[in-house]
Amino acid sequence: MNTINPLREILKEKKTLHSNRGMNLENDINLSNQYYIDTNQAYIYKKPTPIKIVKVDYPTKINKVNKIKIKEAYFESPSTTDYNGLYSGKYIDFEAKETNNKSYFPLENIHLHQIKHLRNILNNGGICFLIVRFNEYNKTYLLFASDFFNFIDNNERKSIPYDYFKEKGYEIEEKFSPRLDYLKIIKKYMEVNYGKEEK
Amino acid sequence: MNTINPLREILKEKKTLHSNRGMNLENDINLSNQYYIDTNQAYIYKKPTPIKIVKVDYPTKINKVNKIKIKEAYFESPSTTDYNGLYSGKYIDFEAKETNNKSYFPLENIHLHQIKHLRNILNNGGICFLIVRFNEYNKTYLLFASDFFNFIDNNERKSIPYDYFKEKGYEIEEKFSPRLDYLKIIKKYMEVNYGKEEK
Repeated sequence: MNTINPLREILKEKKTLHSNRGMNLENDINLSNQYYIDTNQAYIYKKPTPIKIVKVDYPTKINKVNKIKIKEAYFESPSTTDYNGLYSGKYIDFEAKETNNKSYFPLENIHLHQIKHLRNILNNGGICFLIVRFNEYNKTYLLFASDFFNFIDNNERKSIPYDYFKEKGYEIEEKFSPRLDYLKIIKKYMEVNYGKEEK
Repeated sequence: MNTINPLREILKEKKTLHSNRGMNLENDINLSNQYYIDTNQAYIYKKPTPIKIVKVDYPTKINKVNKIKIKEAYFESPSTTDYNGLYSGKYIDFEAKETNNKSYFPLENIHLHQIKHLRNILNNGGICFLIVRFNEYNKTYLLFASDFFNFIDNNERKSIPYDYFKEKGYEIEEKFSPRLDYLKIIKKYMEVNYGKEEK
């Protein structure tokens, strides 16, 4: 009765691994960024989370608190993206999101302020993109902001189909180290786009 | 008895203006950054303040709160600088400080993590600097990170003399708009340093 089906066990384990990895896009990116720093390839880092402070307690002799304590605050809707930094002097900026959806990436994941932010970067010659992980397939794509804007500026729908990522995006290789080698795509992109153009 | 001394009034007014301006370096920079955005010259912005969250209240049906409330949090020592962004694709990063000191800028104003951050940027080909306002003279200087490091790496003292800013720094012009035209210095710097070098 308690016989163990080895195949089932393996599949269960895979499922767990799969789910864990799906929930750790941020972690994978942070590890990759640290790898790029350690190997002197790029310096890309996570920005602090924007928080709206409502009430604070200032240090006083009476309460013996020696630093300002925030007593009431709320998460603000982000006006920029999660990550930025530089590679070879170039400004790099991106937002990372995962979705459990099988066939599309819902646009409600990206705020209007973030879209404005990405447009500003593009207008000023920066490199910006989205990193989107489809947990169901455990596949992670890099979609350049220009392709992202091409889609949202020419479509009414509130989501981007998975097929659009497969067609226009670049699948990011998952390795032991760096976990998500998105810089490899950026390096190629810069060779192709800036190799000649730059003064 | 109540005669007004016009000279005294003028001097009093000047003093007030002077103090106001001295306390508003951040405001002057924010206005300048907005001017650069509006005139499509550059996109440079303030990062959120890093905050360490200790306790939160999650939304429940009982307390009728529909968003996460942060109940206890503290300001974190900044690990990066206040401002970053891009000009003509190049990564730009700086920290802005003011001092009431007449003859030097105390180095305790810049944290160790921020110094590491600036070194990372410099190593990856970015443009980074300090903007320091000496309130006493109402003069604001831009000091490139390379000159900043030249000083701290070769000196034991815990402050940078005002004379070093006058010698190695660049005084930032104060105007009506933009209030602090630091980008003018960056543009010249890029012409001189990257005009030929870049591929």
